[in-house]
Amino acid sequence: MLKNDLLEQWDRENFFHPSTHLAEFARGNLAQRVITGGKGCHIEDRDGNRSLDAFAGLYCVNVGYGRQDIADAIAAQAKELAYYHSYVGHGTEASITLAKMIIERAPDHMSKVYFGLSGSDANETNIKLIWYYNNILSRPKKKKIISRWRGYHGSGLMTGSLTGLELFHNKFDLPLAQVVHTEAPYYFRRDNLDQTEEQFVAHCVAELEALIEREGPDTIAAFIGEPVLGTGGIVPPPEGYWSAVQAVLDKHDILLVADEVVTGFGRLGTMFGSEHYGMKPDLITIAKGLTSAYAPLSGSIVSDKMWKVLEQGTDENGPIGHGWTYSAHPIGAVAGVANLKLLDELNLIDNAGAVGTYLNAQMTDALLDHVHVGEVRGEGMLCAVEFVKDRGSRTYFDAADKIGPQIATSLAAQGVIARAMPQGDILGFAPPFCLTREEADTVTAATLRAVKSVLG
Amino acid sequence: MLKNDLLEQWDRENFFHPSTHLAEFARGNLAQRVITGGKGCHIEDRDGNRSLDAFAGLYCVNVGYGRQDIADAIAAQAKELAYYHSYVGHGTEASITLAKMIIERAPDHMSKVYFGLSGSDANETNIKLIWYYNNILSRPKKKKIISRWRGYHGSGLMTGSLTGLELFHNKFDLPLAQVVHTEAPYYFRRDNLDQTEEQFVAHCVAELEALIEREGPDTIAAFIGEPVLGTGGIVPPPEGYWSAVQAVLDKHDILLVADEVVTGFGRLGTMFGSEHYGMKPDLITIAKGLTSAYAPLSGSIVSDKMWKVLEQGTDENGPIGHGWTYSAHPIGAVAGVANLKLLDELNLIDNAGAVGTYLNAQMTDALLDHVHVGEVRGEGMLCAVEFVKDRGSRTYFDAADKIGPQIATSLAAQGVIARAMPQGDILGFAPPFCLTREEADTVTAATLRAVKSVLG
Repeated sequence: MLKNDLLEQWDRENFFHPSTHLAEFARGNLAQRVITGGKGCHIEDRDGNRSLDAFAGLYCVNVGYGRQDIADAIAAQAKELAYYHSYVGHGTEASITLAKMIIERAPDHMSKVYFGLSGSDANETNIKLIWYYNNILSRPKKKKIISRWRGYHGSGLMTGSLTGLELFHNKFDLPLAQVVHTEAPYYFRRDNLDQTEEQFVAHCVAELEALIEREGPDTIAAFIGEPVLGTGGIVPPPEGYWSAVQAVLDKHDILLVADEVVTGFGRLGTMFGSEHYGMKPDLITIAKGLTSAYAPLSGSIVSDKMWKVLEQGTDENGPIGHGWTYSAHPIGAVAGVANLKLLDELNLIDNAGAVGTYLNAQMTDALLDHVHVGEVRGEGMLCAVEFVKDRGSRTYFDAADKIGPQIATSLAAQGVIARAMPQGDILGFAPPFCLTREEADTVTAATLRAVKSVLG
Repeated sequence: MLKNDLLEQWDRENFFHPSTHLAEFARGNLAQRVITGGKGCHIEDRDGNRSLDAFAGLYCVNVGYGRQDIADAIAAQAKELAYYHSYVGHGTEASITLAKMIIERAPDHMSKVYFGLSGSDANETNIKLIWYYNNILSRPKKKKIISRWRGYHGSGLMTGSLTGLELFHNKFDLPLAQVVHTEAPYYFRRDNLDQTEEQFVAHCVAELEALIEREGPDTIAAFIGEPVLGTGGIVPPPEGYWSAVQAVLDKHDILLVADEVVTGFGRLGTMFGSEHYGMKPDLITIAKGLTSAYAPLSGSIVSDKMWKVLEQGTDENGPIGHGWTYSAHPIGAVAGVANLKLLDELNLIDNAGAVGTYLNAQMTDALLDHVHVGEVRGEGMLCAVEFVKDRGSRTYFDAADKIGPQIATSLAAQGVIARAMPQGDILGFAPPFCLTREEADTVTAATLRAVKSVLG
């Protein structure tokens, strides 16, 4: 590798990094890290530092780093045909094969897949399809989308509106008017500490019903939710939540969008979160795990029920006015095919379930006794540790104290990457599916040391 | 290549193609074409048919197909490190190098580049940054975006709203409220045929001024435009248009977004359309030509003036709440570096200017005499032929007659790909920059035959 001593200067002078303090970065007051390679659960930077990446990039490198099968597939496709578009019936062997592989893996009632690049653009596609669907069905008023506070559905204008986190709204004039939010199914943070989980589910459903009545059921087109809340805090739903929500949606003829960008293709130890929790989505959003991030690719999986109406729409109106230049990009498609094959061949989804369960158990054992640990929770290869100022009264630290970020920084100094989730002091873990029990032990031990170093 | 006889069936059963008549495709009534390879200006399908692609994919494969330098760079990066994120100061050698190469090539007053994946998401980023900018400057009302009818700025909800084409609005409830449209600088389609080009520019500017006054200058944040209208008809601006528009924007403190997804990196024979026409943009949207589509990558280039305010914003509010998982994806970044190098080494931008001029001249010679050809127009390696029912009265064919699509189909049967633009009977050409004069002659001769076969 080129040892380019100007690289850090070029970085500060030219590169607008996402989710970064722009002024501090440009002034040279933030760490810069140039990543050069990776293998399994580890990454390496240009200074030779190695880290165990217990967040798999941004919970996306599900098969782990350095998979030469996927790299070889990408290389072969790049040499043969890097690009052609997929408009008006064009395709490549990889994109068609991948569409078939996705529908084979999706719940039985799903019909077709539209390809995009990111989870954000897939959710844009979803809203366009939902609005189109209700226009074709002559329900022009039925257009609003219900999302949950703490949901994460993207960083665009409409998708950032679906997202229910302050960081993505403040100073951006979001949410836009077409989106309304309802209670997050976050039992630990319930207002009424006396509620049982069952009572809390009834409360969430009552809030949802009240919102629908307030807005008018004939104005509500869809409900979008992640099977497990992701960036909002890595929060599995309380028992019975999804079946209760599904019943409300069915009653009011409201479509369900399952945003499976994080959970799709195995993170919960099952292929999709929808089956894991018995959801019956009309649209499924997929991205990260589809290619394990080896190349950008996302998708909207459309149900039979919606597809029939889309067909009617094009019979009545001609070709659908929706397309991305890079929809079904051959490099992304071939990465997706190789990635899904690898998940099967190496039995990685089972490993995500088994080692994920182990990681959650070890983390609970090691940390739940700590006076400032309020909860250790997770599902499959997702785990979160939430910190509290006081356990009994369930009070939280001031955000300005940056407890979560400090613990993540301490972990990083030990060579373990976890993520301080953006709203609350919550440490998130979402390792690659190939994590071993030994690596899980390393992560747990480092976390305990980091917590002690910051909170005593 | 695998000869998979089920491929067409899999395609119909599972793949939701963009911009397609979904019902006809699923019924098997639309052509399916599986592309397998390409070299220079030609692509090849699995049945062995070769076509001269005079639209460069979707005006994006600017360096031509089969460039092994770019394929090798992608292969090497995939093997070394397919992915790591670029949040909070992370990067790769390729992404940092590319940021520097872009700013070196951009107009002098541009400062930083934010990376996305598509032109659509880059324009989403632009609007977020514009709203943030005016919030930081305590101008909360200054938020509306002016776009032009026939502009193309994406296919999302807000970006499809910026787009000023019926196909992208109908049945999708677009445009959204925050976008207002003004006259397209489309001299050929002016209402008043007696106007000179100069008078028409004055008319466009008066319309713009009137719109700004009507909405209130303190409510207008930005004006977005492609240097040359693209999907709206491939229409170069009339002489003096951009300097007159720029003066109006400056007067009202309205930001200018130059959408250079089509024109950026050489399509007009110059690096950017902004310099070509003397625009002084605050944001430049880049995508297609940045990587010649070898991998998905887009960008928002931010001016010094805006960057200073973004820095102030993060000093006041902390890290910016905007990020895509695949921002600055290493595969896209390395493709961008290799692509920009290739443009230089092979002198392809000069070739785009020279052979593009030749193509336009030959097309004019061959077609302008035809009674149903209203105009042949272009700039650099962009060319359009517009058809009319009657030249003198400037009347158009009925859209239902599908004259443009019929001519494109006839061309395709001769092995030449051009694009029937979506609004009007307009045949568009945007070949790779490596087009030779002989290939330009082939395209011209085939076009003349196609026009005669459809229109006599």
